[in-house]
Amino acid sequence: MASISGFPEFLPQGRMVETRALKILSSVFELHGFANIQTRAVEPVEELSRKGEITKEVYAVRRIHAGADDTDDFGLHFDLTVPFARYVLDNAGHLNFPFRRYQIQPAWRGERPQEGRYREFWQADIDIVGLNELSFHHDIEVVLVMLEACQRLEEELGIPPVLMRINNRKLIQGFYTGLGITDPMAVIQIIDKLPKIGVRGVTQMLAELGTDGDVIDKILTFASIESRTDFAREVGALGITNEMVEQGILELETLLAAVIGRFPDNVVVDAKIARGLDYYTGSVFELELVGNESLGTICAGGRYDSLATDGKTTYPGVGISFGVSRVFAPLISKSKLVASRCVPSVILIAVDSDDQRAQADEVAAALRSRGICCEVSPNSAKYGKQIRFADRRGIPYVWFGTLQGQVKDIRTGDQEDADATSWTPPSEDARPQIIQG
Amino acid sequence: MASISGFPEFLPQGRMVETRALKILSSVFELHGFANIQTRAVEPVEELSRKGEITKEVYAVRRIHAGADDTDDFGLHFDLTVPFARYVLDNAGHLNFPFRRYQIQPAWRGERPQEGRYREFWQADIDIVGLNELSFHHDIEVVLVMLEACQRLEEELGIPPVLMRINNRKLIQGFYTGLGITDPMAVIQIIDKLPKIGVRGVTQMLAELGTDGDVIDKILTFASIESRTDFAREVGALGITNEMVEQGILELETLLAAVIGRFPDNVVVDAKIARGLDYYTGSVFELELVGNESLGTICAGGRYDSLATDGKTTYPGVGISFGVSRVFAPLISKSKLVASRCVPSVILIAVDSDDQRAQADEVAAALRSRGICCEVSPNSAKYGKQIRFADRRGIPYVWFGTLQGQVKDIRTGDQEDADATSWTPPSEDARPQIIQG
Repeated sequence: MASISGFPEFLPQGRMVETRALKILSSVFELHGFANIQTRAVEPVEELSRKGEITKEVYAVRRIHAGADDTDDFGLHFDLTVPFARYVLDNAGHLNFPFRRYQIQPAWRGERPQEGRYREFWQADIDIVGLNELSFHHDIEVVLVMLEACQRLEEELGIPPVLMRINNRKLIQGFYTGLGITDPMAVIQIIDKLPKIGVRGVTQMLAELGTDGDVIDKILTFASIESRTDFAREVGALGITNEMVEQGILELETLLAAVIGRFPDNVVVDAKIARGLDYYTGSVFELELVGNESLGTICAGGRYDSLATDGKTTYPGVGISFGVSRVFAPLISKSKLVASRCVPSVILIAVDSDDQRAQADEVAAALRSRGICCEVSPNSAKYGKQIRFADRRGIPYVWFGTLQGQVKDIRTGDQEDADATSWTPPSEDARPQIIQG
Repeated sequence: MASISGFPEFLPQGRMVETRALKILSSVFELHGFANIQTRAVEPVEELSRKGEITKEVYAVRRIHAGADDTDDFGLHFDLTVPFARYVLDNAGHLNFPFRRYQIQPAWRGERPQEGRYREFWQADIDIVGLNELSFHHDIEVVLVMLEACQRLEEELGIPPVLMRINNRKLIQGFYTGLGITDPMAVIQIIDKLPKIGVRGVTQMLAELGTDGDVIDKILTFASIESRTDFAREVGALGITNEMVEQGILELETLLAAVIGRFPDNVVVDAKIARGLDYYTGSVFELELVGNESLGTICAGGRYDSLATDGKTTYPGVGISFGVSRVFAPLISKSKLVASRCVPSVILIAVDSDDQRAQADEVAAALRSRGICCEVSPNSAKYGKQIRFADRRGIPYVWFGTLQGQVKDIRTGDQEDADATSWTPPSEDARPQIIQG
């Protein structure tokens, strides 16, 4: 059985990298009061098809021996937003709003696999959802929390710095409406293709939509605005103003100022960002890895005026999703990030002879009782062989003898007396380290 | 959208219980040197159908818009053993044997849901797999590690004590063969039904198989052996002996003695245990929760002479699987185990007025820099309302003012001066506590 394309799996030392990344993400989210939830892997197919085009990428799930009248038509979720919106409606009576949650789970899409794009991929999402209302400062909050998480990943795992491109749907829609465009969503979807099909392609598609040449020019000039300081003046110079444009600019200026205050080098306003098909209604964000732009968007999100609704109550939300597999699967599979050993054990307990295994077990128990991960040699081969057993796994220490025995650092060859009831490895060895390969 | 039967989901305070349980399991496994891996959710359908009857419970996965000639016939894995066996073959050249791994993931079965039985359920598996050979002491090891994990769950989360029933396939098969039975597997499958259909049902099924009455008597006497001390004598009294019986008894005695040495009250030999359809070839284990036997088997495993094989190399294995959902989903959904709060935050930072949010953010940042989980009030309502906001979430403390401010313990009403660069909550409050409801 060869591996299935698009479903990445890692060796234990790769999984350690992934686990460390997830731990960093979780710990930042929890520092900011986000509670963890998990949702089931499947949703009813009709829930998954609400977003239109995406339906074609859904994996359907059905019991192999389901009868023709079986109505269990499920699909694997393709993101964590749709299941979260459903979860909020299911549990609204038991949640406290504004409700802030993080969710780290795999999602599945039947896409053509390529680097950074998988059929099974892990996402780490944070969202804040309100009951009928949600203050704008939460837009700022989710952005700052995610940038803090990215900064921690940069500091602790050495991923490249991120650049967050921000924009605002009110500004875009107000601007296009001000230009006399009746279907701003159609233009948004065309501009979304700008990086792929270029100015010529976009011009042609807009013309096919019946857009005048000078309007196309203004759309393209607007979409080319990319600024850390000056975007409001640049938008103003285009001479389109209305209430939506003004509100969009105000929100965007507020968000930009707050982010610059904390992460001056990691943010830019980019007027072409719209997050394509998603039904965002205010702030939108996209992150890329500086120097790794070819990997595409590694993190994205925005504000929904209605993340969910049951007809009576509306749940506005703002959230952002980090593409764990997109960032880490290539780094792990290319060994750009590796663990210093492939087992949790910091020490191997050597076994003198098969009938003295109990003695080695006793040493191991004494170490474990103080939280030291260890394993006992599976056999009583010559010491040289047992040391090689440890070495092949990257285990740095080997224990010889009884509770009052000796510890060898197999990297240096140093060996000294040690007491299993008190010996402790140096803190940098206690857990596998993540190293840049 | 109502919840889907058999796919349990929890509120954040329930998820905290589950997370704590998983953390306890992982930490025990890592103390014993088991490395974590994850496998993809899907396997080719032919991999999943090797075990025969189980096929009918598999969920098939297919792209919604797959063409008729699409050959991606996948299924969701129904346990973690089949994917692990495939993973070992896929990665054999990169693994060090004996390879010890733990794996904590959901699995899926299209079964009729009932208490403790779900269609999506979490398992926590440990296995040790060798290259062509694997010493018997690893059978003892996986049993002791799992019993240690159960003991930790009992101590820290108050789950009931466990009883492990052990047996040995060599003993069973040797015994049935010694009785002149040509298809011991058929008898094993009938005896497996003993708890459900009783002696009368089993007698009838064995008779239908063409088994003589006195042989049926011996089978039933054998299957009724349940002993902590005396099983070898009781088996011996039945007068059936051969090499397999002797080897089975020897292994079982060795395992029993080792377990009694550490967990004298948690183990019994039970000659009717065979683990039905699974292809175990030596030790078999089943665990139940004492006083909660109706929940069924919460943990099970055994020894395979061939967990996997590629024709040239054989990978014998021994492992045991803990049913996380079976144990914890009922405890969580009945609120027998609850978290002391529904958010990670130990303190809420009150906001005096909307234009002083930055001041509250500064307090929060000072606390977070020292690992203290907190959140800032979403609004600047009256203090009483902000305190109720904290109270409804179970957040025990509220911060008022600037970096040099005041902390109120809202449970006692005590309020005192505090410095955000040094204030630390009592350690018992730092993380949500898990409480027996």
